[in-house]
Amino acid sequence: MRKLFAEFFGTFWLVFGGCGAAVFAAGVPDIGIGLVGVSLAFGLTVLTMAYAVGHISGGHFNPAVTLGLWASGRFHQKEILPYILSQVLGATAAATVLYIILNGGNAFSSEGAGAFATNFYESPVYNGKSFSMLTAFCTEFVLTLFFLLVILGATDKVANGKFAGIAIGLALTLIHLISIPITNTSVNPARSTSQALFVQGEALSQLWLFWVAPITGAIVGGILYKNLLQNNK
Amino acid sequence: MRKLFAEFFGTFWLVFGGCGAAVFAAGVPDIGIGLVGVSLAFGLTVLTMAYAVGHISGGHFNPAVTLGLWASGRFHQKEILPYILSQVLGATAAATVLYIILNGGNAFSSEGAGAFATNFYESPVYNGKSFSMLTAFCTEFVLTLFFLLVILGATDKVANGKFAGIAIGLALTLIHLISIPITNTSVNPARSTSQALFVQGEALSQLWLFWVAPITGAIVGGILYKNLLQNNK
Amino acid sequence: MRKLFAEFFGTFWLVFGGCGAAVFAAGVPDIGIGLVGVSLAFGLTVLTMAYAVGHISGGHFNPAVTLGLWASGRFHQKEILPYILSQVLGATAAATVLYIILNGGNAFSSEGAGAFATNFYESPVYNGKSFSMLTAFCTEFVLTLFFLLVILGATDKVANGKFAGIAIGLALTLIHLISIPITNTSVNPARSTSQALFVQGEALSQLWLFWVAPITGAIVGGILYKNLLQNNK
Amino acid sequence: MRKLFAEFFGTFWLVFGGCGAAVFAAGVPDIGIGLVGVSLAFGLTVLTMAYAVGHISGGHFNPAVTLGLWASGRFHQKEILPYILSQVLGATAAATVLYIILNGGNAFSSEGAGAFATNFYESPVYNGKSFSMLTAFCTEFVLTLFFLLVILGATDKVANGKFAGIAIGLALTLIHLISIPITNTSVNPARSTSQALFVQGEALSQLWLFWVAPITGAIVGGILYKNLLQNNK
Repeated sequence: MRKLFAEFFGTFWLVFGGCGAAVFAAGVPDIGIGLVGVSLAFGLTVLTMAYAVGHISGGHFNPAVTLGLWASGRFHQKEILPYILSQVLGATAAATVLYIILNGGNAFSSEGAGAFATNFYESPVYNGKSFSMLTAFCTEFVLTLFFLLVILGATDKVANGKFAGIAIGLALTLIHLISIPITNTSVNPARSTSQALFVQGEALSQLWLFWVAPITGAIVGGILYKNLLQNNK
Repeated sequence: MRKLFAEFFGTFWLVFGGCGAAVFAAGVPDIGIGLVGVSLAFGLTVLTMAYAVGHISGGHFNPAVTLGLWASGRFHQKEILPYILSQVLGATAAATVLYIILNGGNAFSSEGAGAFATNFYESPVYNGKSFSMLTAFCTEFVLTLFFLLVILGATDKVANGKFAGIAIGLALTLIHLISIPITNTSVNPARSTSQALFVQGEALSQLWLFWVAPITGAIVGGILYKNLLQNNK
Repeated sequence: MRKLFAEFFGTFWLVFGGCGAAVFAAGVPDIGIGLVGVSLAFGLTVLTMAYAVGHISGGHFNPAVTLGLWASGRFHQKEILPYILSQVLGATAAATVLYIILNGGNAFSSEGAGAFATNFYESPVYNGKSFSMLTAFCTEFVLTLFFLLVILGATDKVANGKFAGIAIGLALTLIHLISIPITNTSVNPARSTSQALFVQGEALSQLWLFWVAPITGAIVGGILYKNLLQNNK
Repeated sequence: MRKLFAEFFGTFWLVFGGCGAAVFAAGVPDIGIGLVGVSLAFGLTVLTMAYAVGHISGGHFNPAVTLGLWASGRFHQKEILPYILSQVLGATAAATVLYIILNGGNAFSSEGAGAFATNFYESPVYNGKSFSMLTAFCTEFVLTLFFLLVILGATDKVANGKFAGIAIGLALTLIHLISIPITNTSVNPARSTSQALFVQGEALSQLWLFWVAPITGAIVGGILYKNLLQNNK
């Protein structure tokens, strides 16, 4: 039960911190935190919670991570569903608090792709450039695959495991530095779901991609690590 | 006594560094550090002092943290008042030096919400958006609650305690990345008090919220950690 | 063989993350990550992969690093060629995926120096300033030399080797903070080659410098560390 | 002798990286690294070299640090002069290479306060605000005093000494986040001297302050730490 609370609080923090930074602070004129600040915020949610509750639950905060760890043989199948449920509940609780605060500032909007930090494809949100469904899928797939390589490598029993929280958190920062302009960056189906629930419309109809691409990427990452990189002797 | 000096110097550094970065460097045109730089500065004050004097006093630098640790059963009640006094004195000393330097550049101003890095609510300081008292309270409450979860988790006897300074410092950076546009971010009554003393007016009349919200958030965080996350066997 | 996979994945991540952040996110108006974000991205690719696969291959991800380690006596000559081949293949695979994604957004361009994050000299890409071939060479030489000093020092048997991933990754961030406006920063022939292959033209004709300058810098760095800094008793 | 080479290379890196980032990359329009990037660069020079050569020389790279450590009783008097000479030589060598590269881009200028990253007072370089000599002195004094508190605390025999490189490097980042708009930030007489030698004029005539203020601040910091914070039993 402590594990599920840890996943709930951790995923709450990921969505409240990452999406919160995006909706409150990214676009402030002249001094806003921009995409660098949002990238930093997402990464720091994981870095901080990895050291705070990683010793309780392992610190997944992400259904794709849970499934990737299972694919590599490091997570029990029977715990998958409770973990994912806790993650989605934590994310949704965070989105609810964000929604309440935004409404207190008359600042909630569900207009336009990317509103409320939702994920998207085929929409020219940044830079006037719109990326196709296939390349959005490819981006989420590759990034989650490498996210799992970093997670599995940094927590390998022969690695400097105490530094894993830093490596994994900053890997999420790096992933956002690359891909916010493409899909608003998911690599985490729980984070995509919580935001889409409040925005509805296209955010919901495109949500499938932000479950399928990260999860397949994570599973392939888990299999690749186990077979190509892990010392199996 | 060494503990109280450590809290004094640590809280001085928090206010001098965090509020100093805000008043001197955030708004420089084109190349200013913006809200990302201010967020980094606040976090680094805690990260650096945690490694410098954390081994002396525990490194609170914040009355809400002191009370949250007490609520979780990790701090003696009789030390609360001396700690908080040292923190408020350290913060006020730092604000005094900031005030002197600003005056040396004819750059002190107490005009407008948020002047001299004061905290505020119901004022459209950033982005033309003004957040209500209730949502400001909610923001400060939730952020301090999670700040305590990170602190208590990262310093748990079963955690990688040596990394706590990194996790806790960067948690404060994250908190600022989210919430500067809402309240200028307090989560620390000492930091709010020192700035309000020099600006007076609305900064003083709104100061109560930046004691009550962080402290109740911290206490609830302490209780939640103890009961839901800590291994009490 | 695990070592070569580690170098392949690590160098893929370096190019996909560093050059990807540059081409997708650096120039987004108002909220783009700019050169700070690109610098952070390059550094975090190495920091994250150092903790993920450093325990497998040593974590070079860069032909100049491989040759500098050899020059200092810490790497076997017979492994040089396979390592460099894996690195160039990993970099080229990453550039291929970047090319595919960019084309999915109709955003690929090979026009102008620095396109697709290629390296260059004698071109006023940033700030209207153009640096001569000699000063570009000097910059790449000095930066790679010091990169090797940091690598060799941080992994010295008498150093805090567990922190080497942080020091080396952030050294690459620092190197980019200095020199993107001069050459777009190489210090890594594999990274220069993969980008030049897709852009052709001047990027290919100038490619020699981004092999010769980093490699000579790295070898001189290796020799200097061994003779002036290492405790050879 | 290895110690002096370590101080030479470390201080070279500090000036080449910190001042180099300032002169090449800070002011690039739209995507320049700004004062956040320069602050990060200065801090990362110390963080990286602390892990690279800190085990050789202790990693001072700064005459004020050397004298502050001596004042606290942690450094032998007879080593002071050789250390400071190595630091000034390393800084000057770095400034020479920066000068050569800038000239290769026709980009060297000695016009105006702050040119070539020199330190200054009583000049409205940033934001149209000019700080008096006394407040510039006060700023440099206070910042170097706290820099020494962080250094002495983080390397105290009862502290987590392995994290000292992170704490000290990021303390230098924090110091720059606060004070670049006031004096261009020195806290390091070697760094001020190397830049002033190439710019001459007012940079040289104001140089005294960037020796006296950091050194007195460092010595007071050393004495305060020894008497108020150190466990002397």
